[in-house]
Amino acid sequence: MPHRIGKQTLAADSAVSVAAWASVGSRMEMEGPLGGALDYADPDGRFGQESWEKAESFMQKKALSLALEKAGLAPGDLDYLLAGDLLNQCIASTYALRDFPVPFLGLFGACSSSALGLGLAALLVDCGAARRAAAVTSSHFGAAERQFRFPLQYGGQRTPTAQWTATAAGAMIASHDGRPPFVRRITTGLITDLGVTDANNMGAAMAPAAAGTLQAYFADTGTRPEDYDLVVTGDLGAVGSELLEQLMQRADLPLSGRRRDCGLLLYDREKQKEVNAGGSGCGCSASVLCASLLPALQNGELRSILFVATGALMSPTASQQGESIPGIAHLVHLTSSAEG
Amino acid sequence: MPHRIGKQTLAADSAVSVAAWASVGSRMEMEGPLGGALDYADPDGRFGQESWEKAESFMQKKALSLALEKAGLAPGDLDYLLAGDLLNQCIASTYALRDFPVPFLGLFGACSSSALGLGLAALLVDCGAARRAAAVTSSHFGAAERQFRFPLQYGGQRTPTAQWTATAAGAMIASHDGRPPFVRRITTGLITDLGVTDANNMGAAMAPAAAGTLQAYFADTGTRPEDYDLVVTGDLGAVGSELLEQLMQRADLPLSGRRRDCGLLLYDREKQKEVNAGGSGCGCSASVLCASLLPALQNGELRSILFVATGALMSPTASQQGESIPGIAHLVHLTSSAEG
Repeated sequence: MPHRIGKQTLAADSAVSVAAWASVGSRMEMEGPLGGALDYADPDGRFGQESWEKAESFMQKKALSLALEKAGLAPGDLDYLLAGDLLNQCIASTYALRDFPVPFLGLFGACSSSALGLGLAALLVDCGAARRAAAVTSSHFGAAERQFRFPLQYGGQRTPTAQWTATAAGAMIASHDGRPPFVRRITTGLITDLGVTDANNMGAAMAPAAAGTLQAYFADTGTRPEDYDLVVTGDLGAVGSELLEQLMQRADLPLSGRRRDCGLLLYDREKQKEVNAGGSGCGCSASVLCASLLPALQNGELRSILFVATGALMSPTASQQGESIPGIAHLVHLTSSAEG
Repeated sequence: MPHRIGKQTLAADSAVSVAAWASVGSRMEMEGPLGGALDYADPDGRFGQESWEKAESFMQKKALSLALEKAGLAPGDLDYLLAGDLLNQCIASTYALRDFPVPFLGLFGACSSSALGLGLAALLVDCGAARRAAAVTSSHFGAAERQFRFPLQYGGQRTPTAQWTATAAGAMIASHDGRPPFVRRITTGLITDLGVTDANNMGAAMAPAAAGTLQAYFADTGTRPEDYDLVVTGDLGAVGSELLEQLMQRADLPLSGRRRDCGLLLYDREKQKEVNAGGSGCGCSASVLCASLLPALQNGELRSILFVATGALMSPTASQQGESIPGIAHLVHLTSSAEG
């Protein structure tokens, strides 16, 4: 049974493993620095489907199937599936996972869904509600562009602060299998709205939420950034990452050399200039976690990291009605060892 | 810590109360059979706001504020807020709850959100992750019509199988306060898709999911419908309720006299003919639970009920792409006593 520390943090009382995981991407992600580490990629991003939305569902299905295969499990071995995405009514998740006969918990955390799902899956395992629980999430550039901005055929120009929605998915299975990496603590974020209204600058809208969650985590646990190998945010991109650094410095918790952002790890901004300020989307942090961070924790290259996925909780309708963009950030503390 | 029984069900190991609750509605709900029991209602459904979406957010805020007030609690006394709705990117929930400085878990269960939220809130309390957790959900007729069908000004005709999205919200607070009603068990549903494609007949799309969850619950617990005072579904309406009855009869678990549906309890279909097959929307089951079922369990009028909220996991985009409508149903077993 998990125990509460401080206001926003839960610590696992048992050794909860991320027992298996898998990542999926498209051409842009294959050509990025982590391309070789993806478990599956489709060059044209269609994945043999008739629409971007169906392609996104396919990616979730593929990621979960691969994670199950790696763990030597059948869908029926899972007690819960947790999933969410950014398509209206989360259809990427629901249409993907209807083929898996597993109790389904639908989540909505925008791009924070990777940490929200993994954190809750770990909680269910820790408290005995599940023997195994899987968390899945995804995003698709084509589906996101036409839903949130313009159809690709329109050829809209993008601002330098805009981010590139990753065509990617990640699936993770939490269990008590005893092997690293381990989920040690989770910190649930508050909805944070400082009044940013520029829908082309999501990083700025989400940075205060990331700062708030990190500050809550450090206060709850009595630790500091230097106690961790890395502090990895979800998709703040170049603009949001700088803002986060400033906010953390002001709180006397500078992240300095240990700060990374999945939106900057997934792509090479020098070579892939179209990503502008970096990657984003639910699949961005999920695929970087699965393709890079979890393997590094598994092999001991990393010992202890804070993974902080960030989400912008807005919609085109809210923006059209003049609303600002609330952000949220959920944190998962991951380690290579079950103790210490 | 909750314990698993069977494949889909968790039983609480502690006495988890629904400590306080509140419901909000508009004119249609005021004029229905439960009108007098709503905690707050606004005749024109605008709640003083500039848009239907903002009105829906207002309803969530109002429902949660009233529930907190009844319990004598401040927002800071809550350890978690769980919420979801059917607007794109769940903006009714996120814009409503940004004013509450409470760790936020966003959910997506379509109209099953009331049971999904209450079930997870109870789980968090039962396992010690939270002292108090609130679950909130809502729907708004005007916002739903223009998002899923046509703007109200268009004056579209509705089919006899269509349902009326409730302009309503409900908020519930789970805690260990020792008073009835109690959450005893939760059964998480599977995504169930039998190929129904008529977006004007959601009841038919959701009935198989409700039947599946109920059959899983009875199998997991070794009980039968006659062990409960009522089996109350979320928003199957007249058409879906009949289908559910048939499916349960075929499974030798007839619900007969103890079957109710929130979509049929919230409105008087004789007088309020515009509701056609009955009410629907996340706020439908949430408001009926708060205005009628929880009070009856509190005062002992009901002793033991199964509350089964049903959701249709589709979107207009999916329908336009020829997809069928997957359904889901989550169950909460509620009693007037902590034992027996």
